[in-house]
Amino acid sequence: MPSCTLSLSCPIKPGVSARVSSFTAERGCTILEAQQFSDRVTGRFFMRVVFDPAENQADVLRTEFAALARQFDMQWELRDPEWMPKVVLMVSKFDHCLGDLLYRMRIGEIAMDVVAIISNHPQHVLTTSLIGDIPYHHYPITRETKPQQEAQVRQVVEETEADLVVLARYMQVLSDEMAAFLNGRCINIHHSFLPGFKGAKPYHQAYKRGVKMIGATSHYVTTDLDEGPIIAQDVEPCGHVETPEDLVAKGRDVERRVLAKAVKAHLQDRVFLNGHRTVVFDG
Amino acid sequence: MPSCTLSLSCPIKPGVSARVSSFTAERGCTILEAQQFSDRVTGRFFMRVVFDPAENQADVLRTEFAALARQFDMQWELRDPEWMPKVVLMVSKFDHCLGDLLYRMRIGEIAMDVVAIISNHPQHVLTTSLIGDIPYHHYPITRETKPQQEAQVRQVVEETEADLVVLARYMQVLSDEMAAFLNGRCINIHHSFLPGFKGAKPYHQAYKRGVKMIGATSHYVTTDLDEGPIIAQDVEPCGHVETPEDLVAKGRDVERRVLAKAVKAHLQDRVFLNGHRTVVFDG
Amino acid sequence: MPSCTLSLSCPIKPGVSARVSSFTAERGCTILEAQQFSDRVTGRFFMRVVFDPAENQADVLRTEFAALARQFDMQWELRDPEWMPKVVLMVSKFDHCLGDLLYRMRIGEIAMDVVAIISNHPQHVLTTSLIGDIPYHHYPITRETKPQQEAQVRQVVEETEADLVVLARYMQVLSDEMAAFLNGRCINIHHSFLPGFKGAKPYHQAYKRGVKMIGATSHYVTTDLDEGPIIAQDVEPCGHVETPEDLVAKGRDVERRVLAKAVKAHLQDRVFLNGHRTVVFDG
Amino acid sequence: MPSCTLSLSCPIKPGVSARVSSFTAERGCTILEAQQFSDRVTGRFFMRVVFDPAENQADVLRTEFAALARQFDMQWELRDPEWMPKVVLMVSKFDHCLGDLLYRMRIGEIAMDVVAIISNHPQHVLTTSLIGDIPYHHYPITRETKPQQEAQVRQVVEETEADLVVLARYMQVLSDEMAAFLNGRCINIHHSFLPGFKGAKPYHQAYKRGVKMIGATSHYVTTDLDEGPIIAQDVEPCGHVETPEDLVAKGRDVERRVLAKAVKAHLQDRVFLNGHRTVVFDG
Repeated sequence: MPSCTLSLSCPIKPGVSARVSSFTAERGCTILEAQQFSDRVTGRFFMRVVFDPAENQADVLRTEFAALARQFDMQWELRDPEWMPKVVLMVSKFDHCLGDLLYRMRIGEIAMDVVAIISNHPQHVLTTSLIGDIPYHHYPITRETKPQQEAQVRQVVEETEADLVVLARYMQVLSDEMAAFLNGRCINIHHSFLPGFKGAKPYHQAYKRGVKMIGATSHYVTTDLDEGPIIAQDVEPCGHVETPEDLVAKGRDVERRVLAKAVKAHLQDRVFLNGHRTVVFDG
Repeated sequence: MPSCTLSLSCPIKPGVSARVSSFTAERGCTILEAQQFSDRVTGRFFMRVVFDPAENQADVLRTEFAALARQFDMQWELRDPEWMPKVVLMVSKFDHCLGDLLYRMRIGEIAMDVVAIISNHPQHVLTTSLIGDIPYHHYPITRETKPQQEAQVRQVVEETEADLVVLARYMQVLSDEMAAFLNGRCINIHHSFLPGFKGAKPYHQAYKRGVKMIGATSHYVTTDLDEGPIIAQDVEPCGHVETPEDLVAKGRDVERRVLAKAVKAHLQDRVFLNGHRTVVFDG
Repeated sequence: MPSCTLSLSCPIKPGVSARVSSFTAERGCTILEAQQFSDRVTGRFFMRVVFDPAENQADVLRTEFAALARQFDMQWELRDPEWMPKVVLMVSKFDHCLGDLLYRMRIGEIAMDVVAIISNHPQHVLTTSLIGDIPYHHYPITRETKPQQEAQVRQVVEETEADLVVLARYMQVLSDEMAAFLNGRCINIHHSFLPGFKGAKPYHQAYKRGVKMIGATSHYVTTDLDEGPIIAQDVEPCGHVETPEDLVAKGRDVERRVLAKAVKAHLQDRVFLNGHRTVVFDG
Repeated sequence: MPSCTLSLSCPIKPGVSARVSSFTAERGCTILEAQQFSDRVTGRFFMRVVFDPAENQADVLRTEFAALARQFDMQWELRDPEWMPKVVLMVSKFDHCLGDLLYRMRIGEIAMDVVAIISNHPQHVLTTSLIGDIPYHHYPITRETKPQQEAQVRQVVEETEADLVVLARYMQVLSDEMAAFLNGRCINIHHSFLPGFKGAKPYHQAYKRGVKMIGATSHYVTTDLDEGPIIAQDVEPCGHVETPEDLVAKGRDVERRVLAKAVKAHLQDRVFLNGHRTVVFDG
């Protein structure tokens, strides 16, 4: 059964929920699933509605909804049943997350169209062979060439009209300009521990500290490195026998599943920025 | 901030969501949190709304909402900010779940009023000392006296006007009549494994099978023993070193937290019966 | 640092541990990691020792250890530092486990040499492209041709001298003869739930029952279908919104990581058969 | 069946494992369970052996083992089958961990004798009523009286001959002298997050950061506050709907089970200090 997804956030105001519900009801649409949340701390309202559009065309609905959206100062999206988001994946030498995302796309688990892969390494250093015909851009980067390299990346994002950029273990810090350009549409994955560790070789630091769990966090990229709004997290237990290399291996498993979860939730319009936090309406 | 909770389920019909939203909006209530779900398989719609009642009295809202509820053939509850559910706890000799629920009540984590404890064993065989002044009814049971004993239990439930009966490791099978009497307001906890085991000494069966995880399931009691609609489940890993007794000990941990989760969710009107399944709107 | 692994099981007898420890100590080997377990129920002793062989050759150690092993009626293995197990992977149309194992081999996380892939479907129906140069055998199977097909499989196992056969979602029941032929060296993965479900479309059964967790079990294949000794298990939470298809998708994630864990543990000689149970010395 | 537990750590030296195994074998003891680990980074060897002492008296074994222990420069313990460790519990106003440990002791899950409870608050502010006849010492503390208060605590520990002091949400920082006095025999529990948060109101910090998991860490107390060697960790998922108070409630669940796990493991001699890390031989 075809369904449309409407997602929106706006300042909390009485009646907004009723107005949105009436909008779909008046047009004969049936609500299949809906979630709302009002954050009294930030003063913002969040709503996601999946509905059967009945006889309505998504683009007509979109036009008609725009007036309501303006009135309540909404940020919003209304997706066709056929909407297929365009995604750019960026990767370094470690391609476990890249391969995982590509496989999930191939079997239809994540509905997306990977329009480009960008790496600072040539394709032949990668392990996965799931790239197939997807355009692969090898843009080396050095401290000196960073501005030019980022301009290349930006051009790919613009030309492909990418909806999302995923840093699938890209291992490069984006410049503030680049982070701002991709604001709200760029997801990163990084290791995470209890307690947290800063700086280089985090798995080695975690080993030295003797942690009993290693984890991963996926988050939106902001100018504040590794500190953007969190989308998903998970952990794996570990023990004294494990070497730093063993921890890195376990980390790969957590990283790929946490990143896949975040990407999937984002592409289904389940994730909303809410100040420095996120609202995630789980499936 | 005081808030009311409205929970409802009814046959899927266009406009129901809009009508409910309009109902609160027209009275100046602000929606704080809302979740909806339409199950196309069973044809039922589920909704839970937490709202700031503004100037409205909950009992006035209740009276006014009744007409709307009738129109859509709703099962519904509208709770005061001060609503305090009455709960009867039933227990056997194993009181880890009982003690856990009482402690959570004491510190205010689960808002409930335990109006009675019923056991087929005298209070002195219990380990916990958290019962305090709560009326404790010792109703022994044998195969012959079961009808009379159940009549005693029923009397307590009726006299206390209990909203919920929790079988906190009660270890007795309810008769079909009793299960029907408590339909939708009686929660049980039992061990669960991958794969499942039927019959006596399940932890010993699980040991013999060498399972690597033991778990627990909380569910509504129906006439189909241990097969009622599931509310919550969880597991703990285990290994070859552990004896059946160790598994029982681990089971206690899982059982108490799964039961507490189910009881809390039920009392917050987050759980809906949906045929043989449940809809649980997570907090 | 190179290390040898000695794994053994035998009837419980006083002194066996001391004799094994003395064996390595007398030859100047340093024990790096060791685990022992005596199962008083089955009467069997299990031991796994990782040691630095010092100046000793693994094959000399093996010859010398054989006398001790005979004396205590041991089943045992002593692995070279360079030992690379040969593995045959069997697969149906669903290749998420296959692709996952191949990737882990490629990046060196699981030390194995996949010597053959066998499927009842042609390679082109698979999604993964990680097979590369690994021999792929397409052996169709029908009820009538099952004996011949199993003879083909058996021939591959024998000619490749495979140490392990992994049913990576092979979806075919092995005959008793085949199960006996592969006894102790064939690992399967299957879905698992709390409670368990038998028969076809288990994820659909689990959906109807409204389970809140889905899981997977990896086990040795025996003539008792899906009931062999369990090696590893894990679960994922799920909820009312998820369709049977969503559960299948989540199942893929659990299946591949549980199978990978079991295969890795087996190939590191961490898993021992112990009647209908296993002993697994975790890393 | 009665069993003794021998636990030891010493510098890595060839033959130590064989000598220990021979020691028990020569006396007719049967090893039931044993774990060894050599940490090549710190150069230390760790071993835990559970054995049936046969005809031997534990104190005779202890005397005889002492010579071997001296030779290898071991830190070691050899426990009687009847050994019952003495434990002092320290608590503040939050008594969820205290109540949990007392209940586990009562039902025989953790074999220990709680010889004293010490708090900076009077008993009547506590919620739990599981204290019974256990001596309760109310020792208020201020910045000025800290040295005197710690002297009181020290006196209790000495007079009761406590084997272990558990800071069950004691909420006070120990002085360096006190931490040194209790070195290796004092376990603390504190909240933990991905990423970690320092300073006051950690659950509020975690809320502001929008974490999706909250956790707890139990560790040995050292002079480096909250940074002692980690024994156990665990987490719970959380989401955008949860308030800081909800996170605190979830934290209580994680805290009590992580602390209980660490206390049980320590009292079973499964935990070894290894520089800034621990070795934990799981059960």
